[in-house]
Amino acid sequence: MPVVIQGSASPSLSSKLSKEMGWRLVRPEMRRFPDGEIYLRIAAGLKGQEVVVVQSLSPPQNEHLIELLLLLDLCRDLGAKKVTAVVPYLAYARQDRRFREGEALSIKTVAKVLERADRVLVVEPHSKESFSHFRRAREIRVFTLLGRYLGSLDLKNPLFLSPDEGSLQRVKEAAQAAGVEFDCLWKERLSDTKVKVEWRKPEVGGRDVVVLDDIISTGGTVVEACKLLKGARKILACCVHGLFVGDAVHRMRSAGIKEIFSTDTVESSFSRISVVSAIASHL
Amino acid sequence: MPVVIQGSASPSLSSKLSKEMGWRLVRPEMRRFPDGEIYLRIAAGLKGQEVVVVQSLSPPQNEHLIELLLLLDLCRDLGAKKVTAVVPYLAYARQDRRFREGEALSIKTVAKVLERADRVLVVEPHSKESFSHFRRAREIRVFTLLGRYLGSLDLKNPLFLSPDEGSLQRVKEAAQAAGVEFDCLWKERLSDTKVKVEWRKPEVGGRDVVVLDDIISTGGTVVEACKLLKGARKILACCVHGLFVGDAVHRMRSAGIKEIFSTDTVESSFSRISVVSAIASHL
Repeated sequence: MPVVIQGSASPSLSSKLSKEMGWRLVRPEMRRFPDGEIYLRIAAGLKGQEVVVVQSLSPPQNEHLIELLLLLDLCRDLGAKKVTAVVPYLAYARQDRRFREGEALSIKTVAKVLERADRVLVVEPHSKESFSHFRRAREIRVFTLLGRYLGSLDLKNPLFLSPDEGSLQRVKEAAQAAGVEFDCLWKERLSDTKVKVEWRKPEVGGRDVVVLDDIISTGGTVVEACKLLKGARKILACCVHGLFVGDAVHRMRSAGIKEIFSTDTVESSFSRISVVSAIASHL
Repeated sequence: MPVVIQGSASPSLSSKLSKEMGWRLVRPEMRRFPDGEIYLRIAAGLKGQEVVVVQSLSPPQNEHLIELLLLLDLCRDLGAKKVTAVVPYLAYARQDRRFREGEALSIKTVAKVLERADRVLVVEPHSKESFSHFRRAREIRVFTLLGRYLGSLDLKNPLFLSPDEGSLQRVKEAAQAAGVEFDCLWKERLSDTKVKVEWRKPEVGGRDVVVLDDIISTGGTVVEACKLLKGARKILACCVHGLFVGDAVHRMRSAGIKEIFSTDTVESSFSRISVVSAIASHL
């Protein structure tokens, strides 16, 4: 029977996965040396075992990434026969192309170091481009799951809104699962020389509007969206990966957001939706 | 002509190396995204160039390591034909064996990710064990250089002291370069079941004693050593890699250390000795 290894960035999700699958949960002994180096130890025997390491690459991303690499190598050293890395949130996925000459394609570096796993499962990896650098990796889509959750809430004449075209297809999936309308707030088209922004102001009078995106980082996009939604009865923000950097939550609340939801790919007090069933279905 | 790429942990050493070799210095554009991800860009053309990336893995080790990986991959992407990683201080070198079953052999993970470089140069990598996991890597010894520097100081009847057997051979090299006496403060022998510690109290009355080691981290070892050196005229502490974690400097001064010296493998106000000539001789 496979074993679930708990990364320090995903304590809740790894526990849930262990319960869902009926697999043993192993909590590595982890601490820091005085100089900041990570100490890791897995006391359980892993010889010949199949292991699933669950570790989100949420902030601090670099710390969580090095921990994941150490865990993957350690499982291999301890004789695990198949090593799966479950990466609920993939860091550096937005650096998936060179916007200016000479920029680091950081996601490629992340993909390369994760090749030490036999396979990698990533929840909603932001873009096709970011995922194209991975071999032996599968993406786990969860917008349908988000839609079903949002559909279960008591919302009045709801409208799901994608803040840009990049998330439109995914918001559509969520809206269809919830059986509600959806729209796109603005379109951004890049020509060779300029950025053309086309604003849309959907009819939101008296409606409950859910601004839906894959990642909320500083909350800037959500705050901008709010300015176009005057007249809405209630505005909610929902995302898969809730990074909520700095004063993001305060900014969103000040802009008029009544409720904030995210999944447990990045664990926080806003993680009201679990992606555990979606991950389990890929194992 | 090769190019020197400046890592953010080694601004001074990389500049010195560029001057010493007469090679162009390239400073990558580096900043942080709001969520903490590293942004890197190298504006210079590197096509067909030989590049030398200089980046210490001093604390915060994991941040500096990820930056180094991004830089190495970026140089390759930009068409560099030969990529050398100069690692003045190698992190995780003390986790070079499993002291307890199930521990991560972290240095092996570091060695593996650095294989993306064509060759790796490491200054004083702590132990043979730590270095055994590297392929295409060379160690740069600098204790002779330390000895020559210490020998140029105005010291009275100096004695170089190794705090344990692990550094004895290296302290001997320094002492011979300086033309002074050396000794070892204590011996530690591990049997199957116990640790046997044998103390030595060298005659230090009226002498200037230099406690010499490869790494000073919390300063604990140096502070312990001081307790055995009553009667010395002056006690100095000297190391290659001065991490000086937390209140290390304060603790050492309180224990009676009059002067603290380190090299620039870890850059600080104590970096009075440069290893640039030693690195240059390996390029």
